[in-house]
Amino acid sequence: MFTARLHERVIALDTRVCLGIDPRPELHAGGAGATAGAGATGSAEAVAAYFERVLEATHDLLACCKPQSAFFEALGIPGIEALDRVMAKARSLGVPVVLDAKRGDIATTAVAYAAAYLGDGQLAADALTINGFLGMDSLEPFIASAISHARGVFVLLKTSNPGSSDVQDLELASGARLYQHLAGLLRRRASGLPADANGYTALGVVVGATHAAHLAELRRTVPSSVMLVPGYGAQGGSASDVVAAFDDAGLGAVVSASRSLTHPRDRSELVAAAGAASAARAAALSMRDDINRALAAR
Amino acid sequence: MFTARLHERVIALDTRVCLGIDPRPELHAGGAGATAGAGATGSAEAVAAYFERVLEATHDLLACCKPQSAFFEALGIPGIEALDRVMAKARSLGVPVVLDAKRGDIATTAVAYAAAYLGDGQLAADALTINGFLGMDSLEPFIASAISHARGVFVLLKTSNPGSSDVQDLELASGARLYQHLAGLLRRRASGLPADANGYTALGVVVGATHAAHLAELRRTVPSSVMLVPGYGAQGGSASDVVAAFDDAGLGAVVSASRSLTHPRDRSELVAAAGAASAARAAALSMRDDINRALAAR
Repeated sequence: MFTARLHERVIALDTRVCLGIDPRPELHAGGAGATAGAGATGSAEAVAAYFERVLEATHDLLACCKPQSAFFEALGIPGIEALDRVMAKARSLGVPVVLDAKRGDIATTAVAYAAAYLGDGQLAADALTINGFLGMDSLEPFIASAISHARGVFVLLKTSNPGSSDVQDLELASGARLYQHLAGLLRRRASGLPADANGYTALGVVVGATHAAHLAELRRTVPSSVMLVPGYGAQGGSASDVVAAFDDAGLGAVVSASRSLTHPRDRSELVAAAGAASAARAAALSMRDDINRALAAR
Repeated sequence: MFTARLHERVIALDTRVCLGIDPRPELHAGGAGATAGAGATGSAEAVAAYFERVLEATHDLLACCKPQSAFFEALGIPGIEALDRVMAKARSLGVPVVLDAKRGDIATTAVAYAAAYLGDGQLAADALTINGFLGMDSLEPFIASAISHARGVFVLLKTSNPGSSDVQDLELASGARLYQHLAGLLRRRASGLPADANGYTALGVVVGATHAAHLAELRRTVPSSVMLVPGYGAQGGSASDVVAAFDDAGLGAVVSASRSLTHPRDRSELVAAAGAASAARAAALSMRDDINRALAAR
């Protein structure tokens, strides 16, 4: 199953780094900075080539990678082709792919999304981020596809943006916050799912690194969910913030960073592709060790 | 602006029907019933050709159309190409396109989705459905793009599935339900946006036809939001249920149906393409008149 494969890799490589792949055509050589249009194919080509190089340079430092679908979709069909290429490269290097697409819908529509990204389709990934606003029945097709295809899902629980409080932190009549209530629903659902040797199921959660207190709380509330923790680095989360997401064995979470890994220097540096790949490797190494040191020190 | 164009069409054609475009390759001639793979290109071709015919046969009965992105994404890249074709056909016939993709993300990622679907990109539509679980700041890039490009957004408020109660109906400490609280946030946000001659802004909402009481309540709570009302027909909403979504002038809402319009007969009928288009026209005509009669009778 997905969590078992992920944890084997975390242990073998001693890394908890998830490489966020957020293409910004304007930052890549050959990129026109435009969305789909005359320059989209060139931009998408440059994006795919750039992240292929970054993956080659960093793969042995990565627990997984997380392409952000939005940035590929913004390039139109050439962008989706670039996503396909980048995912194929990750697969060829043995790096699990968590597609960050935050899909969510109901009934047969959810089945279609699950088929697209957690089934046998061209764009299927090892795991997918999903949005639970539509209720628990909207998650079932994703969970079913994840189980039957040995893949995983990560349900949004508490995101790293300031406005996450508008909905996720709302105080309910029960006294709980909304994200706490949702965590309870997910815990109950996970209790009916098969677990790996470390106790984790296919039903993971997303909790932003910018909420250190929530990470510790939710580690207890959803003990069988792997936590995908975005927001390290550019968004302000530190290694000492994110350690709370891990269990006592240092498992059960991966920490993602995007810009701070893949665009670690100024733009002029990025235009020299070899330099960018080296810089990405240095940044990934530093992040891996930063997290591991913080785990060892707790 | 989008709402003005939509209402001009509603008035000129006296129709409030939104044609839901939910491709099911297994229902179309030539479809293999598979997701992306060997048969995906053939399936996607058949899907595009089928809905081009349905649009040709029904366009003068439609206020707008609503392609469901999930079913196209499930066919991989050929599916996205089919979506592009179907949207181009709708544009060529003058039918506004509401892309039902339920996107939602934060910061620059939301900007990328907005660029993809509400900007100048290849896959841009007249309006997009979006998910507000990540908070009001997550909606801003979509609103900004909608305003600057004369397009629209429809924020999920109350969906038609049974599980929508898990999150959307939660009772808050304030006594309000979550969807009511969100409606309040949206109303306040809409008050700062430009309105068309009928008082509607680019900030629309989605409310399922299966919640007749909620439609009446929300018509009052978000008076400047056009309501996209799915769930008529196959999902159980009737014309007498949906009339509550309209203002006194019979504006401010569109009602969508998918299977009951585009797959109105049994499968053997659908294989005969000309027959399917005729059946879709008859079903759209019946739905248009059903809603208009219910509006006249209230």
